[in-house]
Amino acid sequence: MKPVDPVFSKLGMRLEPAAITRLMAVALDSPDLLSLAAGFTDNATLPVEVVRETAARLLTGPGSESVLQYGTNRGRTRLRELLAARLAALDGLPAESRSPDEVLVGNGSQQILALATQVLCDPGDIMLVEQPTYFVYLDVLKGLGVDARALPVDETGALDLPGVGALLDDLTREGVRDRIKAVYLVSYYANPSSNTLGESEKTGLANLLAERGLVLPVLEDAAYRELGFGGDAPEKSVLALEAWRDFPKLYAGTLTKTFATGLKVGYGICGHAEWRERILYLKGQHDFGTSNFAQAILEEVLSRGEFEKQLTRLRRAYAEKMETLDRVLRAEGLAEAGWEWARPKGGLFLWLRGPRLLDTRLDSPFFHACLDNKVLYVPGNLCMADGMGKNQVRLSYGVLGLGELEEAGRRFARAAKSFRPS
Amino acid sequence: MKPVDPVFSKLGMRLEPAAITRLMAVALDSPDLLSLAAGFTDNATLPVEVVRETAARLLTGPGSESVLQYGTNRGRTRLRELLAARLAALDGLPAESRSPDEVLVGNGSQQILALATQVLCDPGDIMLVEQPTYFVYLDVLKGLGVDARALPVDETGALDLPGVGALLDDLTREGVRDRIKAVYLVSYYANPSSNTLGESEKTGLANLLAERGLVLPVLEDAAYRELGFGGDAPEKSVLALEAWRDFPKLYAGTLTKTFATGLKVGYGICGHAEWRERILYLKGQHDFGTSNFAQAILEEVLSRGEFEKQLTRLRRAYAEKMETLDRVLRAEGLAEAGWEWARPKGGLFLWLRGPRLLDTRLDSPFFHACLDNKVLYVPGNLCMADGMGKNQVRLSYGVLGLGELEEAGRRFARAAKSFRPS
Repeated sequence: MKPVDPVFSKLGMRLEPAAITRLMAVALDSPDLLSLAAGFTDNATLPVEVVRETAARLLTGPGSESVLQYGTNRGRTRLRELLAARLAALDGLPAESRSPDEVLVGNGSQQILALATQVLCDPGDIMLVEQPTYFVYLDVLKGLGVDARALPVDETGALDLPGVGALLDDLTREGVRDRIKAVYLVSYYANPSSNTLGESEKTGLANLLAERGLVLPVLEDAAYRELGFGGDAPEKSVLALEAWRDFPKLYAGTLTKTFATGLKVGYGICGHAEWRERILYLKGQHDFGTSNFAQAILEEVLSRGEFEKQLTRLRRAYAEKMETLDRVLRAEGLAEAGWEWARPKGGLFLWLRGPRLLDTRLDSPFFHACLDNKVLYVPGNLCMADGMGKNQVRLSYGVLGLGELEEAGRRFARAAKSFRPS
Repeated sequence: MKPVDPVFSKLGMRLEPAAITRLMAVALDSPDLLSLAAGFTDNATLPVEVVRETAARLLTGPGSESVLQYGTNRGRTRLRELLAARLAALDGLPAESRSPDEVLVGNGSQQILALATQVLCDPGDIMLVEQPTYFVYLDVLKGLGVDARALPVDETGALDLPGVGALLDDLTREGVRDRIKAVYLVSYYANPSSNTLGESEKTGLANLLAERGLVLPVLEDAAYRELGFGGDAPEKSVLALEAWRDFPKLYAGTLTKTFATGLKVGYGICGHAEWRERILYLKGQHDFGTSNFAQAILEEVLSRGEFEKQLTRLRRAYAEKMETLDRVLRAEGLAEAGWEWARPKGGLFLWLRGPRLLDTRLDSPFFHACLDNKVLYVPGNLCMADGMGKNQVRLSYGVLGLGELEEAGRRFARAAKSFRPS
């Protein structure tokens, strides 16, 4: 007898390796390559002393065993109180306006988003997403058999509301209006566009949806909200905007990108009790709660003000890194070679558009020219629901140090200029 | 306009609150109640000093930032090497007989089991499980719309192989033989039965399945394997038994129950590359890897021999606790009142069978008699695929101290004797 293969589920068969995994494998194969692809954070910014002291304090004295015991499925009570108050403050509201009961803690914000989507979407359903959007979320949708449809944007990246209306008309004509299940927005210093949705854009979208009778769940992915170079983004979240009042809302935030990625703790805030509880039932089947020890560390760090101090350090570090990469690309003549990009006001990414006919996709000649120049990027089409954006590129300045960023920028510009349209 | 509710997915609608959540809520409402329900570990056994010293060491010196950085989706390389070697040793094989490439790290073993099941099973599929089995896994199956069918056992709890054959005949007659997707076994000091499957039982099952042409994926949940009071269970896992050679196999183990539940790290070992990779694709969409810091702590603890020392302490502590609860129940005359149970050789549970006509289910008069006596248990029917076992009870001696266990045992016996068959 020879070994037998399993018969996989429909979901199992739809799963594909994440594109980023392929890119990481490329990077590992070529140790002298500089990666502008990975969205990791900078080792030099990681708060080693704070975590060391916090862990030591938590593990000293009577009752300290409790942080090594199971926690609850929804997360530590004091941590949820701190997160509720923090979110209220970010939205300019009194601390008590958000209840800790609305908060659920996850293994990063991504777990909450994945579980929340799974309890909403069946195969064939439609999710409205931005153009571009976070590529891992597109993978989640593909796995669930959900059709991602892009909300049109104008040339500045702002939501094109008449275009959204036309999209909804199209979906109605296609007979799939009833399959539109929810809206996913990456609304602050977005991955990959670094764009922040203005309050008027968000309000306009809510009004348009409500006019069409589409009061749908909205998932707001705010992973980079606190990474504005000038401080927290002032734009209110959907939790606080009047136009979204009647929509079921899930806000996903993280303590990972903003503090220490190795702790892997994020959170969701969901005022719709049934949606929230169904997410928790599913989380209970997966892990019955995120590491209680990692949660306890972050609870301490938040309550002692260390989180805000770390944010201040991070913002300064990422602003300097963004400026370094931006400056090198401009100095090397990338703009003159037909490339366009905006200077981000926060986040970890430059989002560039190359010459119109350039193809930046995986394994394109341009991709290989970059590899030949020992530099790696994320192809823009991976971030598009419709596979467009084939002349776009995401560059992350998260991981590399300043000197490496300068060198990586020079390499990228060199490769790009060798593809100057003739 | 009034707030609008989401339309949930089919999975979303199938989800239900875990029964244990209901039980925990009962316990919280009644602070003087002693809970023999929760499967938590004992705070007094948690390795506070070891974790404190390990965390301090990891966070000191050059390169220490790396443990606070993202890890990889499949888990730390050195940790996977240690786990591969450990599993080989448990199965009596040379260290190099298991490859670290087969190992994937998760947020507890439960996450691996949940994801592995999701990539296998569609609604309407059938999973073969033991009778009784782990109730959280039954919830996973219910959520996925999978039909759990119980493998018959004899009165000692051993697999009834002719009965299994008859079950397979039944499924063939029902026309659903092709929907049988996999087998789930909790094979060491099982939750809830404390039963260990003998090698001959496991081999017999494999041979029977193979004879019927059902060379199906097997999921072996070994969460309690290392918690034998006399040391590691000597029975080989399905990974090492010749009869299972051609079956796709996933072995799920944990560093949580065996070290510190608050770290929430488990692992899977899966030699079938495609199954393993599909599990990893899905994990990548959920969290792209378990907390790197928690993994690093466990890697250190394993490599420095602290894990084995902690196991020795745990085994002694749980053996004493089991003996205490068992002794009190016998001294209080529970056996004379018509109850039967075996003394476990490891694990965290006593699995009792009450008088034949007794109903122990949630909200039964017996359940309320126990609440009136301020003691809580897990009703046995929750652990049964077919809802049988309505006169059975799981008692956990994991959490309570020795004095509390004595008192809880007296309370349970008092409630049980008040239901003596007349």
